[in-house]
Amino acid sequence: MDLLSQIHSSADVKKLDRNQLEPLCAELRSAILTAASKNGGHLASSLGAVELTVALHRVYDTSRDRIVFDVGHQCYAHKMLTGRLEQFDTLRRFGGLSGFPKPCESADDACISGHASNSISIALGMAKARTLTGADYGVAAVIGDGALTGGLAYEGLANCGASGESIVIILNDNGMSINSNVGAVSRLLARQRVRPSYLAVKRLYHKTIGRFVGVHALIHGVKEWIKDIVLPDTIFEDMGFYYLGPIDGHDIKTLTRVIRYARELRIPVLVHVTTTKGKGYAPAEANPQSYHGVSPFDPAQGVSLSHVSSFSEVFGEELSRLASQDGRIVAITAAMADGTGLSWFSGRYPERFFDVGIAEEHAAAMAAGMAAQGLRPVFAVYSSFLQRSYDMLVHDIGLGRVPVVLAVDRAGLVGADGETHQGSFDLGLLRQTPGMTIYAPSNYAELRSMLRLALDAKGPAAVRYPRGSEGKHTLDTSALAETVLRDGTDLTIVTHGIMINEALAAADELESLGLSTNLIKLNRLDADEFPVTAQSVKKTGRIIVLEEVCAHGCMGQALLAYLAESCVFVRFARLLNLGDGVVTHGEVETLRRVCGIDSASVVSAAKLAMEETNEESKA
Amino acid sequence: MDLLSQIHSSADVKKLDRNQLEPLCAELRSAILTAASKNGGHLASSLGAVELTVALHRVYDTSRDRIVFDVGHQCYAHKMLTGRLEQFDTLRRFGGLSGFPKPCESADDACISGHASNSISIALGMAKARTLTGADYGVAAVIGDGALTGGLAYEGLANCGASGESIVIILNDNGMSINSNVGAVSRLLARQRVRPSYLAVKRLYHKTIGRFVGVHALIHGVKEWIKDIVLPDTIFEDMGFYYLGPIDGHDIKTLTRVIRYARELRIPVLVHVTTTKGKGYAPAEANPQSYHGVSPFDPAQGVSLSHVSSFSEVFGEELSRLASQDGRIVAITAAMADGTGLSWFSGRYPERFFDVGIAEEHAAAMAAGMAAQGLRPVFAVYSSFLQRSYDMLVHDIGLGRVPVVLAVDRAGLVGADGETHQGSFDLGLLRQTPGMTIYAPSNYAELRSMLRLALDAKGPAAVRYPRGSEGKHTLDTSALAETVLRDGTDLTIVTHGIMINEALAAADELESLGLSTNLIKLNRLDADEFPVTAQSVKKTGRIIVLEEVCAHGCMGQALLAYLAESCVFVRFARLLNLGDGVVTHGEVETLRRVCGIDSASVVSAAKLAMEETNEESKA
Repeated sequence: MDLLSQIHSSADVKKLDRNQLEPLCAELRSAILTAASKNGGHLASSLGAVELTVALHRVYDTSRDRIVFDVGHQCYAHKMLTGRLEQFDTLRRFGGLSGFPKPCESADDACISGHASNSISIALGMAKARTLTGADYGVAAVIGDGALTGGLAYEGLANCGASGESIVIILNDNGMSINSNVGAVSRLLARQRVRPSYLAVKRLYHKTIGRFVGVHALIHGVKEWIKDIVLPDTIFEDMGFYYLGPIDGHDIKTLTRVIRYARELRIPVLVHVTTTKGKGYAPAEANPQSYHGVSPFDPAQGVSLSHVSSFSEVFGEELSRLASQDGRIVAITAAMADGTGLSWFSGRYPERFFDVGIAEEHAAAMAAGMAAQGLRPVFAVYSSFLQRSYDMLVHDIGLGRVPVVLAVDRAGLVGADGETHQGSFDLGLLRQTPGMTIYAPSNYAELRSMLRLALDAKGPAAVRYPRGSEGKHTLDTSALAETVLRDGTDLTIVTHGIMINEALAAADELESLGLSTNLIKLNRLDADEFPVTAQSVKKTGRIIVLEEVCAHGCMGQALLAYLAESCVFVRFARLLNLGDGVVTHGEVETLRRVCGIDSASVVSAAKLAMEETNEESKA
Repeated sequence: MDLLSQIHSSADVKKLDRNQLEPLCAELRSAILTAASKNGGHLASSLGAVELTVALHRVYDTSRDRIVFDVGHQCYAHKMLTGRLEQFDTLRRFGGLSGFPKPCESADDACISGHASNSISIALGMAKARTLTGADYGVAAVIGDGALTGGLAYEGLANCGASGESIVIILNDNGMSINSNVGAVSRLLARQRVRPSYLAVKRLYHKTIGRFVGVHALIHGVKEWIKDIVLPDTIFEDMGFYYLGPIDGHDIKTLTRVIRYARELRIPVLVHVTTTKGKGYAPAEANPQSYHGVSPFDPAQGVSLSHVSSFSEVFGEELSRLASQDGRIVAITAAMADGTGLSWFSGRYPERFFDVGIAEEHAAAMAAGMAAQGLRPVFAVYSSFLQRSYDMLVHDIGLGRVPVVLAVDRAGLVGADGETHQGSFDLGLLRQTPGMTIYAPSNYAELRSMLRLALDAKGPAAVRYPRGSEGKHTLDTSALAETVLRDGTDLTIVTHGIMINEALAAADELESLGLSTNLIKLNRLDADEFPVTAQSVKKTGRIIVLEEVCAHGCMGQALLAYLAESCVFVRFARLLNLGDGVVTHGEVETLRRVCGIDSASVVSAAKLAMEETNEESKA
């Protein structure tokens, strides 16, 4: 790390000699591989964007210029170049560096990233602010071809192209999104890719016409004319951009020159860069999909194929099994076939499998159309990405009461990906969807049962389940909306989903302290009435509700409101949840402790319940 | 109505002689003008789509074929042709016909409409279902050029074009959306419009080459070749569609022929139809924007310019005033400059005004970028359309804590537009946005004050206010989070926003019955603690919470949960709200009565409170 260790800012990158850039890129790749293999992370994207990142720092100064990284998967080199090399071994660990850009971590990060397709909109807002405030910093967005399948990116392009702002959009085109691209966008880009490079044409021009005409205005006119003849309209030019590309994204000198030229044009420019995902690490180049998001692995061996079962996998298995019995079942994903466990389904039933790209709005609306006409669509989606579909949940699915099934994966804490990916908010959204039945399996057996129940529902239904594996509790009680798992008289504890394991551990500890817990698990989260819980609280007078969701719209609020409306006297109540829903990155166990939703927090709350109410009895 | 009164279905439309079609269109226009001028409604869109609708019924049978109308503004002719002529004078009235397509009203309506840009996705889902279930009905979507600015439409086009499905997308291009179009989309369409009509080329072909070549395959090849020469690639062809257009949308014979041809192609076809918004009613043709959504008016006179003040107008005035003092303030709308009261601002500060098209996602994300770089963006948006922005509220605005101001118009019941437009859900969404401050003005004075407070906030802030005018209550108490407007001992009533008028009327009536009310108005809806309310309930023991929002995530749930966690004993609690948030169309006063949130409902609940708790005291 001879070069890298000397670099702390864009200014340092600019000081390097041209011939030091390729060695710098090699050092960056080595450091990325070391960190991602140690802590897990987004390896292939970051490896693919090394030269691009260095080129950006040659042209821009990220301490004042604003570079908006779409999704942010590709930010590792940027972090190392901007003063964060020494902490890089803390990547994605609790208290360490985030795996995504975060302004609170560094002023060199323009904005929070994590979700796709927003970078052009954010960058356009920044460019407008720059212009209206009379400042003169540069603004650029870096967006992958996968993110370009999202409608938000198109809204951004349309408005950006028409804006006339000085802004550079870098399309980092690696010919695939997380899964392979779908639909028209990939076709369009594929066509662009085989065109003669603009730079080749420019070189030709310089060698021929360029030497015969001297007047700048004339040159410009001729140049445009040649460009128009040789490179006919692209969709980006239709949208108001000056298009430059395609450029080899690993040729750092050309990249730097083109990006500098694009910046100097001071109009909306789209630079089309082709890169190889996983570049420089042979196993990742050969199989970039397996190296998109990796768990810790040995770089000499490549990612391990060791198998850990997960809710996603059980979902995929069960859905495939059900699909073999019911031809109406189809599966939809928004570019997350692997993550949601649908890969096997996609191979088995290709004509009943729909990967729509990063287009959660379209996925939900298309599902509504399918359900209205007799199919049983299952849209498998991560909790935090379901946020994109909320209007379609209400308008197209809820109001029409069509039987769409939402398989809401990664509900609750997800761990190392941090605040942009935690599944804190889906429950409130689902409860605010008219007619939505909501199931909360706590283990694999319940996931299987509840998926079947959801597919049998007359209207829309959701099944929400966490990232990772089931815990000790494996009993299937899905037939009941509320189920009593421990009988007791001192205290009522209510929970749902995977948190039952923390609640059971707490009940065990409380029992050892001589306190008897009435433990209730909610299986249906769309309920407005909770008679079993009410019965329990009438007996105990004390209630703790434990949930891995944000406070607003949580079951605890609904439960306590129901108890009050039902005139059930509550002597002590405590809601344990994720508060505002913003939870940093780290191990899930650590985060539960920090948020106060682990078994120890339940025990503390229970002790407090007994103390306060005993005081009260005395008083 | 000689012809129209004989028609009850697509089959009846097909029975007509060709020369009866233009007279039928004239009758439809007359009936539309009569109904919309009597009850108000979406006049200009429906007038513009008369020939298109008749042509669709000549080609399709809507009792089995699925025609998805985007937004649904243009559905009046369709309703009259499918058995709903006699009820048409009940349009948009409580218990009468909806102003939008609704499958529960007629099997001829393919799906619920109301929000924009979803039709291609829904239709694609239906086409997939048709194909996978082995059925053979036709599927078409009708989408305006305005709706094409939405990213969801682009996601739909990209997936639809790549699908190979037999589906027809009709682009109803009237050269304007609700306001004039913005950005790249309108430029693209403008370029298409001036091209020679495909049909003209086709005619030329038939007159020349067509007569010399007989073999079908060869004809097809030649035809394609001519089309490629004369009509180079369009963006729609890039996306996988067979493009036909532009077609005169008021030439019913050509329209019918082209749509029939499009259907017979059995691939994804885009038919580009140019129409005149307001066609056939001179005042609307001259000024279509004023005739988009109309209140009742005299057709002989045209829409009245009589002036009724509104929250929207006060917002626009105050924002313009504040903008004159603070150059950082900019205003953003998603194609609703008039509706949100921003027209004057847009004229006064054109460079600080941004109409992004029907692109609520982009609007929110762009606002985040602007706020991060020193501007104070105000995104004015209807409550029900804010649903589109939820992910951007969390991810781009909430996590970054950037000072974006949301001016949430049409919060609560909107009346005649019905369930797709009621502002039932925004409060829960806003409360689930990290760091969001939420103000609820109940009158114009508070709107002005709270808008200033929101602009002074360090982080994101929302001001939510209703459609229409203020009521009797005009006092500005915005300085306090919770404010006591009546002191009393029997009962606590808590409310917020415009509902204070119902609550005050109830308190008056209760006073005449000898009951004294402690009336509390919440001005801040982001609170987790409600000490004033707690103090009141400690005194009264009875609480009624009155809100014009859906039950899940309402303030009442938060309040009752807070009281329980604070160990405040509640003898009686009742939450009066919109339940699941689905409220039909009708006068707002009627809807409040039906939903049980009018003053009479509060009085009934209060009487019940006294009865039940007196029983309890006796028991």
